[in-house]
Amino acid sequence: MAKGVDLRISRVTVPTLREDPADAEVSSHALLIRAGMMRQIAAGIYSLLPLGLLALVRVEEIVRDEMNKKGACEIALPYIHPADVWIESERWFKYGPEMMRLKDRQGRDFCLGPTAEELVTKYFASTAPSYKDLPINIYQIQTKFRDEPRPRYGLLRAREFRMMDAYSFHTSSSDVDKTYEEMHDAYLNIARRCSLDARVVEASTGLIGGDISHEFMVISQVGEDVIVYCKNCNYGANAELERHRPTRIFGGNKEEPISEVHTPGIFSVDDVASFLGITPERVLKCVLYVVQGEVLAVFVPGYRDVSEEKLKRFLGTDEFHPLRDDEREIFPELTPGFTGPVGLKGARVLFDLEVKGAKNLVCGANKEDYHLTGVDEGRDFMAEPLADIACAVQGDGCPECDGYLEIAHGIEIGHIFKLGLKYSEVLGANFTDRDGSLKPAHMGTYGIGTTRILQTIVEQHRDSQGIRWPKACAPLQVEIIVLSPSDPMQNEVLVMLEGMFKNMGIQALVDEREVSAGVKFNDADLIGLPLQVVVGSKVSKGMLDLKIRYTQERGDFSIDNAAGAIKKALDSAP
Amino acid sequence: MAKGVDLRISRVTVPTLREDPADAEVSSHALLIRAGMMRQIAAGIYSLLPLGLLALVRVEEIVRDEMNKKGACEIALPYIHPADVWIESERWFKYGPEMMRLKDRQGRDFCLGPTAEELVTKYFASTAPSYKDLPINIYQIQTKFRDEPRPRYGLLRAREFRMMDAYSFHTSSSDVDKTYEEMHDAYLNIARRCSLDARVVEASTGLIGGDISHEFMVISQVGEDVIVYCKNCNYGANAELERHRPTRIFGGNKEEPISEVHTPGIFSVDDVASFLGITPERVLKCVLYVVQGEVLAVFVPGYRDVSEEKLKRFLGTDEFHPLRDDEREIFPELTPGFTGPVGLKGARVLFDLEVKGAKNLVCGANKEDYHLTGVDEGRDFMAEPLADIACAVQGDGCPECDGYLEIAHGIEIGHIFKLGLKYSEVLGANFTDRDGSLKPAHMGTYGIGTTRILQTIVEQHRDSQGIRWPKACAPLQVEIIVLSPSDPMQNEVLVMLEGMFKNMGIQALVDEREVSAGVKFNDADLIGLPLQVVVGSKVSKGMLDLKIRYTQERGDFSIDNAAGAIKKALDSAP
Repeated sequence: MAKGVDLRISRVTVPTLREDPADAEVSSHALLIRAGMMRQIAAGIYSLLPLGLLALVRVEEIVRDEMNKKGACEIALPYIHPADVWIESERWFKYGPEMMRLKDRQGRDFCLGPTAEELVTKYFASTAPSYKDLPINIYQIQTKFRDEPRPRYGLLRAREFRMMDAYSFHTSSSDVDKTYEEMHDAYLNIARRCSLDARVVEASTGLIGGDISHEFMVISQVGEDVIVYCKNCNYGANAELERHRPTRIFGGNKEEPISEVHTPGIFSVDDVASFLGITPERVLKCVLYVVQGEVLAVFVPGYRDVSEEKLKRFLGTDEFHPLRDDEREIFPELTPGFTGPVGLKGARVLFDLEVKGAKNLVCGANKEDYHLTGVDEGRDFMAEPLADIACAVQGDGCPECDGYLEIAHGIEIGHIFKLGLKYSEVLGANFTDRDGSLKPAHMGTYGIGTTRILQTIVEQHRDSQGIRWPKACAPLQVEIIVLSPSDPMQNEVLVMLEGMFKNMGIQALVDEREVSAGVKFNDADLIGLPLQVVVGSKVSKGMLDLKIRYTQERGDFSIDNAAGAIKKALDSAP
Repeated sequence: MAKGVDLRISRVTVPTLREDPADAEVSSHALLIRAGMMRQIAAGIYSLLPLGLLALVRVEEIVRDEMNKKGACEIALPYIHPADVWIESERWFKYGPEMMRLKDRQGRDFCLGPTAEELVTKYFASTAPSYKDLPINIYQIQTKFRDEPRPRYGLLRAREFRMMDAYSFHTSSSDVDKTYEEMHDAYLNIARRCSLDARVVEASTGLIGGDISHEFMVISQVGEDVIVYCKNCNYGANAELERHRPTRIFGGNKEEPISEVHTPGIFSVDDVASFLGITPERVLKCVLYVVQGEVLAVFVPGYRDVSEEKLKRFLGTDEFHPLRDDEREIFPELTPGFTGPVGLKGARVLFDLEVKGAKNLVCGANKEDYHLTGVDEGRDFMAEPLADIACAVQGDGCPECDGYLEIAHGIEIGHIFKLGLKYSEVLGANFTDRDGSLKPAHMGTYGIGTTRILQTIVEQHRDSQGIRWPKACAPLQVEIIVLSPSDPMQNEVLVMLEGMFKNMGIQALVDEREVSAGVKFNDADLIGLPLQVVVGSKVSKGMLDLKIRYTQERGDFSIDNAAGAIKKALDSAP
């Protein structure tokens, strides 16, 4: 962005609001709107106003800089993609209603690009590359379109959003690994420069596909993903993929004979445990799912939940649901609430790994109002088939080290994938190898959401007064607040400051509205630029007030020494 | 764009071609593709490759800088616009198939923004502005979509293209005039900085509407518009609007009696004139049009053509066409080729202004193979109705001064409009005036095509070898050509040059491919960066070759003095 003249606050340029907008469910969404940085146009579709756009440009400059440092090449693909390449990769059919589609005046099919593996791979193929041209990493920073079923949280889950998407091509899988590591580093650098603490977690590859993928997660209560990570080592994974090392003992130590107890109307794990005076670590939990018309009884330790994400991966489908009350009569052999693995009829079974070898358990007796105690795996039932099917709990051990796992919500800001040959083979992305033969290129793909980063910065850097922009991605560095714009002396100081900032290469936000000092101070804190310079009555004594927004630290300085004082304050601002 | 590492030529990054692509009808289109700067994805839809994108960024930086200098504020509107605002302005219905439309998963209507008067005006209205907030000029630089019936000429007439569009709001019409003048200046500055010689011409307001508009035209044979301009003053107009001062005498001086001559099979103006030994200035030309099922005979001086654009404006419709051969039998009273205004039956008539008072004319006799001579307007027929309906010809006088008009083809790079209250009234864009009353804001709108400018630069700055990028908008400033990349000494010099350029803040294009020197030199001229530095065998003598691409001026310099020599060469390059 070319350095422009200073921006003046007005109702049109920076339309600040006193109240949170009704539809803003998270603070960062509310703040971006209240601070006059963006406006909603339709569900999940926003305009960025001058300050919001300036901040986005800062973020995108950081992204571009880190990509260029890794030798990646920027291009610009079109927004509308012809259907044919998407049909060739079959994603035209797989994408479903999330892909926005349209026809041109001749009736030809197009979509608004939700991502660009197809176009980039086709372009690569069209250049007839040789092994000498590889590796190559091509990226673009562009608006993308995904018709989310539930757009919400402002820019965190929008239908139109901006993303940097990169695509790398290689002669071998091990060469992909090198670029994958470089992108991993670049993404962490981007997060760091945007003042975001990102954790890298193993993730599922979803609709993009490929072999391995990692997500870059910023821990936040408003994050829509659940992640599990080790406080001691680098291990981390999306909850759908996590592995954990149990630290609690599931079941009892002694062997007891199996016996039936009457538990009238008592079926939740906690109720059963408290009725019998034991802990949930002794209870075998059962959840009944309906999968393709049959019931699957899933058994996990009583202190854990079933991970439906892991179940989805295990079953290879997401077409299942917990047995509903209105479905009970379809399966009369079952006794929901009292289902156990001993003598169970009318259901397939699946056991979590931790059930293997557990002794002295309490479980349903497959008889209304009865449980069994003293049940041993191996003696009374066999835990077969067995799978990692339970959720992690706080206090679980790390699968990779002696440390312990944390469970948290995270905002996904980036996602990197090793694609293998998935797209190259289907779309003919071959290179001529050293021996003259044509071989499909190995690929990686890397995405980072720039509008999502923008809002995540606000989510992580705010207080009760408003946004606290970190210096590196603030829309502008300084706000000049003129308390009495009609006072000639204050006006003269403003002109002097504007000239000085121009010489320093700093564009300022200027508030010289005819409103009260209170409104100006509140708006300045709401907008949250790193430094506030106040031109008030002290100008008659040759002094100006100054505030570092992040720390709310205040001071004053002599007009004669303005440049030095402002430089020093800016240097010290976070 | 952040300064990145140097860009290396490879088949993937800069896929140069030896041959012109088959579908490129104009040189600039062919050159952008041959120089590996862009690729077609579908008709009128392109990807910009690294060098093409870098050049576009340069152009857009210039545009942004000139807009900011005029105090305009940049925002970013969404790409997909909800239908409702377009329905409110009724342009949803007026735009026709040129507007690309789509539905979201709930079946709601959207379009891909072809322009943004509706969204910006609605935004302005939503801020409840006061007169103190005006004037305000809001702009964005964004990809736009228009489903052209005949996309062609590469980026000159594309379906997806980039444009800077600005919208200004004012308390009065005279205040619009000030901003209109500023934008006029800004656009001329942009053209100048992009090394384009733009002429400002009066234009029709078309679908945008409003009172007055001007186009910024770069004179070029491949331009799709015809413009008329004075070589002496600032007068200029699109041909559909031009006014001209005839300098030839139409008709003869003496009065002669009317008489019929046999002109067997002779009907074109030139043939009639040569048959009778007179000039076309004595012949009254007639063109027959079919308008809503009726014939209109349009009469103009024999040395002029009928302007169908003027006819369209006169008739208020574009639903007319010249009478076709297969339609002759529908109108048996007419004698096409021999139609004249004396005793004409079966057609309405329309005369050009210049016919009024003309004497001693030759015209069709309304009888197969016969013409009339000695025909006088006023005596033998009345030139009624009368309108400015003829095209200008070379040598016509300027309507505003004593100078003479030029007629040329032009590429429209920008268009500015005074909108009046057209959008404000319909969309409720009111401001609170000094007296507390609500008044509709006066508006202006200003568009300049950045991808079109990009290609126009190439069209205007090229030679038989390739593109000659002017320094100010070249994708990069320097290409380093390494003749023998495997020579350690040449490689060492390359490393030194790259370090030096980095220190100078210059990103270079590097050609260290294992191809012949000829291929490298040809590609360098094709790509056309301002300066070429050749690392060849002369490095053993401590020397490098250098070429200024625009002038093909060559020289050499000592490696010890590289920084100074390169700076001097760059300074002298156009």
